[in-house]
Amino acid sequence: MIVVMNIGATGSQIDRVKEKLTQMGFGIHHSEGVERTILGVIGPKQPGVMESIESMEGVEKVVPILQPFKLASLEFKKEATRVRVGDAEFGGDQLVVIAGPCAVESEEQMMATAKAVKQAGASMLRGGAFKPRTSPYAFQGLEEEGLKILKNVSETVGIPFVTEVVNPNDVELVSQYADMLQIGARNMQNFILLKEVGKSNKPVMLKRGLSATIEEWLMAAEYILSEGNFQVVLCERGIRTYEPSTRNTLDLSAVPIVRRLSHLPVIVDPSHASGKRHLVAPLSRAAVAVGADGLVVEVHPSPENALSDGPQSLNFAGFEELIQTIRPIVEAMGRTL
Amino acid sequence: MIVVMNIGATGSQIDRVKEKLTQMGFGIHHSEGVERTILGVIGPKQPGVMESIESMEGVEKVVPILQPFKLASLEFKKEATRVRVGDAEFGGDQLVVIAGPCAVESEEQMMATAKAVKQAGASMLRGGAFKPRTSPYAFQGLEEEGLKILKNVSETVGIPFVTEVVNPNDVELVSQYADMLQIGARNMQNFILLKEVGKSNKPVMLKRGLSATIEEWLMAAEYILSEGNFQVVLCERGIRTYEPSTRNTLDLSAVPIVRRLSHLPVIVDPSHASGKRHLVAPLSRAAVAVGADGLVVEVHPSPENALSDGPQSLNFAGFEELIQTIRPIVEAMGRTL
Amino acid sequence: MIVVMNIGATGSQIDRVKEKLTQMGFGIHHSEGVERTILGVIGPKQPGVMESIESMEGVEKVVPILQPFKLASLEFKKEATRVRVGDAEFGGDQLVVIAGPCAVESEEQMMATAKAVKQAGASMLRGGAFKPRTSPYAFQGLEEEGLKILKNVSETVGIPFVTEVVNPNDVELVSQYADMLQIGARNMQNFILLKEVGKSNKPVMLKRGLSATIEEWLMAAEYILSEGNFQVVLCERGIRTYEPSTRNTLDLSAVPIVRRLSHLPVIVDPSHASGKRHLVAPLSRAAVAVGADGLVVEVHPSPENALSDGPQSLNFAGFEELIQTIRPIVEAMGRTL
Amino acid sequence: MIVVMNIGATGSQIDRVKEKLTQMGFGIHHSEGVERTILGVIGPKQPGVMESIESMEGVEKVVPILQPFKLASLEFKKEATRVRVGDAEFGGDQLVVIAGPCAVESEEQMMATAKAVKQAGASMLRGGAFKPRTSPYAFQGLEEEGLKILKNVSETVGIPFVTEVVNPNDVELVSQYADMLQIGARNMQNFILLKEVGKSNKPVMLKRGLSATIEEWLMAAEYILSEGNFQVVLCERGIRTYEPSTRNTLDLSAVPIVRRLSHLPVIVDPSHASGKRHLVAPLSRAAVAVGADGLVVEVHPSPENALSDGPQSLNFAGFEELIQTIRPIVEAMGRTL
Repeated sequence: MIVVMNIGATGSQIDRVKEKLTQMGFGIHHSEGVERTILGVIGPKQPGVMESIESMEGVEKVVPILQPFKLASLEFKKEATRVRVGDAEFGGDQLVVIAGPCAVESEEQMMATAKAVKQAGASMLRGGAFKPRTSPYAFQGLEEEGLKILKNVSETVGIPFVTEVVNPNDVELVSQYADMLQIGARNMQNFILLKEVGKSNKPVMLKRGLSATIEEWLMAAEYILSEGNFQVVLCERGIRTYEPSTRNTLDLSAVPIVRRLSHLPVIVDPSHASGKRHLVAPLSRAAVAVGADGLVVEVHPSPENALSDGPQSLNFAGFEELIQTIRPIVEAMGRTL
Repeated sequence: MIVVMNIGATGSQIDRVKEKLTQMGFGIHHSEGVERTILGVIGPKQPGVMESIESMEGVEKVVPILQPFKLASLEFKKEATRVRVGDAEFGGDQLVVIAGPCAVESEEQMMATAKAVKQAGASMLRGGAFKPRTSPYAFQGLEEEGLKILKNVSETVGIPFVTEVVNPNDVELVSQYADMLQIGARNMQNFILLKEVGKSNKPVMLKRGLSATIEEWLMAAEYILSEGNFQVVLCERGIRTYEPSTRNTLDLSAVPIVRRLSHLPVIVDPSHASGKRHLVAPLSRAAVAVGADGLVVEVHPSPENALSDGPQSLNFAGFEELIQTIRPIVEAMGRTL
Repeated sequence: MIVVMNIGATGSQIDRVKEKLTQMGFGIHHSEGVERTILGVIGPKQPGVMESIESMEGVEKVVPILQPFKLASLEFKKEATRVRVGDAEFGGDQLVVIAGPCAVESEEQMMATAKAVKQAGASMLRGGAFKPRTSPYAFQGLEEEGLKILKNVSETVGIPFVTEVVNPNDVELVSQYADMLQIGARNMQNFILLKEVGKSNKPVMLKRGLSATIEEWLMAAEYILSEGNFQVVLCERGIRTYEPSTRNTLDLSAVPIVRRLSHLPVIVDPSHASGKRHLVAPLSRAAVAVGADGLVVEVHPSPENALSDGPQSLNFAGFEELIQTIRPIVEAMGRTL
Repeated sequence: MIVVMNIGATGSQIDRVKEKLTQMGFGIHHSEGVERTILGVIGPKQPGVMESIESMEGVEKVVPILQPFKLASLEFKKEATRVRVGDAEFGGDQLVVIAGPCAVESEEQMMATAKAVKQAGASMLRGGAFKPRTSPYAFQGLEEEGLKILKNVSETVGIPFVTEVVNPNDVELVSQYADMLQIGARNMQNFILLKEVGKSNKPVMLKRGLSATIEEWLMAAEYILSEGNFQVVLCERGIRTYEPSTRNTLDLSAVPIVRRLSHLPVIVDPSHASGKRHLVAPLSRAAVAVGADGLVVEVHPSPENALSDGPQSLNFAGFEELIQTIRPIVEAMGRTL
């Protein structure tokens, strides 16, 4: 931590800051600059110290040096974490493709989708039973009925599934059915929910918040890890920017940045990021090429009849084409589907 | 709703869209433009229709015309909603000032603060018992102990209080103590929580999400209203932008825009928006002048010892100065403190 | 400047950085932290040093401490700069109101506007003769003919005017007519143009770029000041964000932040920021209350016939109402119109 | 164009809008909706009409239907434009790699770089002789001396070069030396400069502005095309967002979006976008996979001694590795280097 004093900071203000830091057990390096005094502060991380010092008279700003996440960091764990869900393994050589509709609508829809995507090359199924929707009047999901459909389809077809949990009280229920729990973008900082999934023994897919920094995203993962669950897969799904052509701006730089900071696998959702069907294939190729460990793609038997997110969903033929277009890139990256 | 077809859309694609809309019970106005066909769609709002049509072949985009919120709209209720909490009334002539620390730390801290801010001119107290924190290692609040302190201080000093609820399971508990429930920015789209506070009979302060559009914010209010609770006060607290000088960019335009769209009162939190003590006074003046119904200001007996948000907290003298500086603006606006 | 080394930085990498800094004439404070080495670097500002060090092996990041602007800073000049244009004075007690149409369209339009706005309380006229337009097919301004109209109207009515210059080659021409030169938002980092107006002896209004940080804005002012022209007035006009309700998000925090960093006056343009007529009055009140030294407001005799920016322009009656609504706030701030 | 009237719009307000549109020669489709009246407006594009109508009483908003760019659009020209610079051809099967330092510093530096990048697989050289810098105190380039160095090196090594032009007055001068002119991000809306390069007969690389929408970017291209120069290559280089980990957020979705809207080639600059050396290789792979026609990469013989942009520059070995890592992706995309 570096404490930068104001240009006009008085000697007694500087002394008070140094006293306070000393009381807290920190070592201090005092630097008298051309215009300002700067204090280098040495010692273990303590939550709240930065804010406390930044509140003192004469302090211009406090610059953090250490990363705020610990268990999620590469320093804590040097080798890549591998998260296994059925035959799918995130974090190794496999490029895990997760496919399925935004929402579970019926057993027929899910059965057809599961068969089609498995045959085309997907190794996991997705589908929402609990849907967080911007409008209270929009379809909110089939709830437990949806979970049952997912479970049945999953077992019949032989493909594991991930589904979103939105209510801390439902974590146990959803865990009874699902192979992997999804934390959606809107809930990335729902800390109560993060703690609950941290207490479960299920793999978790943690989507990046709509306007979360990469650091905040890793801090959200830290909430899950700090409860003992290390099976976390990060999922980049676009961030909010001023550009109106896409629903969100897919931030593919996040993949190599996370790789340098953390041992956790990171995958990409090009469907939600773009909100447009014709962007899913090129962005999927780019995600594979940038080094992602997997893809989450929306697929629906009949997108125009989908109860949500139709405009960005591929139909079965579209999904097959997607697999065709990414296959050479997957191979070029030394991975397998 | 306006459906804009692609430039190369075929006659049969256009026909299919028209058929589907007709089946759904909509009226259609067909416009043959220079380059494209455009369909004006007439009929009552139906969730999911836009997406469904946007998924069809030959459709370029669908432009919504009607606002997605209903109960929160000025069309639904023409006169301004007034929300009363003790002697404070939001939505009328009063400029309601809510003051207090970010987090409840002790009875002494709250008692001193409550007395000081009441004397200076505040009509409500604030303080967090449950704190959503970016880091799992930061102080998370005193929880029920904090609620008890708030209740006791509130009754002793004679000032009502608002406090945040973060867990749907705690809504009942918090409602037993608090005069008003706060939904924080990170939970603005925690729909489970919104529904729970919608079922309570307590006034609710709904903070705008970190990167929520005004429309999404009003949709979040709609969740609460649609459960039967109309005592909702909106709180602008800054949005995330690229500018690094402030923690967030306070979007004061939101106040007159909400006024034109909704009957709900809207207040401003200059402390969280800016993250800097020296900006609180000028931004408070601006908030009053733009037409806000109230202010939420962080005040702490000793900001440098605060367990959270010290850098943006005023001490008691600072809060008195704040009241001095806003008083002439409050009067110029024809309001009272 | 603080140099933060990587966690795994080797002793020889650290030594190389220290050698390089020593060669450049800097003093160094070495801090051995818990996880990393940090170097405090002391000495006068030298452009390019930060980048050079940041490029070295083993360096994680370089944190600047000194502000990059010098002549524009409060450290360089402690008292507020006053910029006088006719009877208008920016930076003192006067709240300078500049009003007029986006574009000069005809002598009649300008004459009527000048009389109306002067009578209502404006002390400067605005109007564009050279218009930077997003589309090459949109009206580009009357050019020199427009300057002649402005000059004639200005002298007849007795009100000084500001007009935009977009071409470095036109600075001399525009200076022959105008009382103040405007640098538009799109040209805030057109350094060739900044240098040219820096060489002129005319007051300059420098609009903030569409997505410029406050620091970049002050650096743009520094370009003008470094050529010898200190008569610079900064103008906040909204920044680009994700929020679609307004054309731009007016960043009123910029006013008190600039005040703490610089001696230059700062004014606000609520018309361009919002793009909507009904927001001009509330945002003008807020701008005055936050401490701005002036306002720039678009006024047109008949907004629906304006050749540009009609939706945000006030008519004469609207401008009179604006003056009525800001007057009590101006007085509450201890200023005069 | 769709005109959406206010909910409370009167019959006479609606009539006035219709009269005005009729006078302007437009056809009108009147739609009486549940809550509002909507007018579909049919006729050729006319600049300024939207704003004029949006300024009228009773109008809520005007929704554009037609794209504002014409010459740059796929409707105007269906086949992809190919831009040839020496042996490099943008817009065909070739993946054009442009490499070189941010700034020309000396003949030795350029000669070494040109040889190294050509040998490794680059087909064009880059280097700045005129540098737009945020600070007036930073290195501003060698100017004409730099152009001479570039020309000499280019001819000696046998590799064409692109260099930035920042002053409209210098377009002729730079054209005498350069094979391709670059318009930098800060000048994307410097319309005077765009017109000048539009009058030259040189190929132009047009970088996307720091916070430009894709539509504004294509409108900037339209300025160049409308002067008769169709040899324009678009370059995505990152947009400004709230995320602090990268200098800018590379918006790779822009590539397939441009492809659907325009016939112009589009390339990607991963160096400026990220500002970090370790991101250049993964983002380059992603750019190729998303379908870009080329890459612009910063390479310097000794990044730590670079006069600008060292932190994001590759050294020669780094550039060779980059070519190795993209080669299989280039092949997977059916392209050649």
